Amino acid sequence: MSILRLHDLYVEYLRQNAFTGAPKNLYEPMRYIMELGGKRIRPILCMTGAEACGGAAEDAISVAHAMEVFHNFSLVHDDIMDRADQRRGLPTVHKKWNEPTAILAGDNLLVKAYESILAFQGDGKDAILKLFSKTATQVCEGQQDDMDFAERNEVSEAEYLQMIQNKTAVLLGCSLASGALVANAEDDIVQKLYDFAIAIGMSFQMMDDYLDAFGDATKTGKVSGGDIMEGKKTWLYIKSCEINAETPNWFAQYQQEQRATLVKSHWINMGLDQMILQKAQEYNQQGLTILSALTERGVNTEGLTEILDFLSGRSH
Amino acid sequence: MSILRLHDLYVEYLRQNAFTGAPKNLYEPMRYIMELGGKRIRPILCMTGAEACGGAAEDAISVAHAMEVFHNFSLVHDDIMDRADQRRGLPTVHKKWNEPTAILAGDNLLVKAYESILAFQGDGKDAILKLFSKTATQVCEGQQDDMDFAERNEVSEAEYLQMIQNKTAVLLGCSLASGALVANAEDDIVQKLYDFAIAIGMSFQMMDDYLDAFGDATKTGKVSGGDIMEGKKTWLYIKSCEINAETPNWFAQYQQEQRATLVKSHWINMGLDQMILQKAQEYNQQGLTILSALTERGVNTEGLTEILDFLSGRSH
Repeated sequence: MSILRLHDLYVEYLRQNAFTGAPKNLYEPMRYIMELGGKRIRPILCMTGAEACGGAAEDAISVAHAMEVFHNFSLVHDDIMDRADQRRGLPTVHKKWNEPTAILAGDNLLVKAYESILAFQGDGKDAILKLFSKTATQVCEGQQDDMDFAERNEVSEAEYLQMIQNKTAVLLGCSLASGALVANAEDDIVQKLYDFAIAIGMSFQMMDDYLDAFGDATKTGKVSGGDIMEGKKTWLYIKSCEINAETPNWFAQYQQEQRATLVKSHWINMGLDQMILQKAQEYNQQGLTILSALTERGVNTEGLTEILDFLSGRSH
Repeated sequence: MSILRLHDLYVEYLRQNAFTGAPKNLYEPMRYIMELGGKRIRPILCMTGAEACGGAAEDAISVAHAMEVFHNFSLVHDDIMDRADQRRGLPTVHKKWNEPTAILAGDNLLVKAYESILAFQGDGKDAILKLFSKTATQVCEGQQDDMDFAERNEVSEAEYLQMIQNKTAVLLGCSLASGALVANAEDDIVQKLYDFAIAIGMSFQMMDDYLDAFGDATKTGKVSGGDIMEGKKTWLYIKSCEINAETPNWFAQYQQEQRATLVKSHWINMGLDQMILQKAQEYNQQGLTILSALTERGVNTEGLTEILDFLSGRSH
C-alpha cells in the first residue's frame, strides 16, 4: 500500500506546486510536461528512502519533487534530440510549442530541480546536492553515449550497460539515496540503497527491452518490435551480434514489420528471449541480496520490497 | 590594475580546470566554448566583490568560475535558439558539432556551474546557491521574453528594460553579490553591490545598442546597423515608435544597408543617438551614487570604480 499512498501524496504536492508565472511561453510547457502523468517512481523512491531510514515522507517531499522535475527536464530535452513527436499519446513540448521554447523550458526545469533541493532544510542537503549534480552529469553522459552508439558499428555489452546505467538507473539511485540522506542515514546505508535502486533500475530496463521485442503489444501499449524496426542498439542487438555475425545484415536487408518478424524469430531460436529475462532476474537477485543486508542493518525494507515487486511484476 | 590581475588569475584557473572527460562529444564542446575567450567580466566581478568586502579573490574563484560557466551555458543554448552560426568569428557549438550535442553540452555546463558553487566551503554557500538559482530562472525568463517580443507588434520601454535586465544584467548582479557573500558581507552591502552591477550592466547594454547603431564598425568589429537590418526591437526602436508612428513602416519598406542608412538618419534627426547616450549615463550615475554609499559603509570601492570606468569608457 505504501506505493499508492506516496504516489497520492506526491501528486497532491505537485498539484499545489504547479509551475506558473510569466512569461507564459516559458511556464506553460513546464507545467504541461509535469502533468503528462507517469508512475512518479522517482519521488516515490525518494520518500520510501526517507521512511526506510526512520524519516517522514513529508520531510523528503521537496527533494522528491526535485527528482521528478529533473526527470521531466531530461524528457523535454531528449525528445528534441530524438525528434520524438509524441509522449504518452500527446505532442511533445517542442511539437506543441517549438524547439527554442522546449530548450528553455527544460533549462528552467533543471534550475527548478536544484531550487527544490535548496528548499529542504536539513543536514543532508549538501550531500544531496553533490549526489544530484554527479547524477545529472551522468545522465548527460549517458544520453551522449546513446547518441554516439547510434553512429557506431560496434558497441560492447559493457559499454551498453554503462550507458543504460547512466541514462536511467543512476537517477533512481540518486532518488532513493537522497531520501535516506533526508533522514540522516549513515553512509553505508545510503550506499546500499543507491546500489539497490541501480539494480532494480537495470532489471527494469532489461524487462523494458524484453517487452519491446517479445511483449504483448495489447498490454504494453507500444508497437511490438519497435526497437528492432528503429534498428536500436539494445542489449538484445549487441548479444545477437556476439552470437551471430549475420545480425547487422538482417537489419540492413529488411525494413519495418518484416524486419521485426524476422529478427524476433531469429532471436527466439537463439534463446535471446530467455537470456534477457535471465539478465533481468540477475539484477533482481542483486536487489534482493542488498535488501537482506539492509534489513540486517536495521533498515525497514517493507516499502523497498513493495517497489521491487511492483517494478519486476509488470507485464507492461 | 586589479581587472588585469583578476583576469589573469581566472584564466589560469580555467586552464587548470578545463573540462575533459568521456564521452568526448560531450566534453569537447564544453571546453571549446569556455576557451573562445571574452572579457571574463563575470568572474572578475565576483572576485572584485570578495576583495571589496575584505575577502580574498582566491577564496571566491570557484564561485567566480560558476558564473562564467553559467554564462557559457546560456551562450550555447541561445546560439541554437537564435540560429547563430558564428561566435567570436568561430563556428558556434551546434554548427561545429550538432544541435543535440549543443543542447547536452549546455545542460552539462549548467550542472557544472552548480558543482563549482558546491565546491566552495563557506557560510555564504546557501545564499549564493539561492541567488544563483533565482538568477538562472530570470535569465531563462529574459530569453523567452526576447523571443516573444520578436513576434509582437508592440513592446513597451518598461517591458524591454525588464527583459534586458533579466537577460544580461542580473547575472552581473549575481556575480558581484556572490563574491560579497563569499566574504560574508552584510545583507545591505550585498544588496547594494547587486544594484551597482545591475546599473552598470544596464548602462553597458545601452552603450551596446548605441554602438550597434551609431558606432564605428572599424572599432566595434560588428556590422554597423546590424540590429536595424535584423529588425530587432531594441530600446532605440521602441523609443522611435513612441516618437514617430511611422517607424514600423521604415522597417517594412526597406531592407539591409538601405534600411540601416535610412533609419540611422531618421534617428539622428530625432536625437535618439543623444537620448540613448543620456540613458546610459543615467545608469552610470546610479552606479556612482551606489559607490558613494558603499564607501560610506566601509567597502573598498577601488576595484568597482575601475570596472565602471572600464565598461563605460569603451568605444567597442
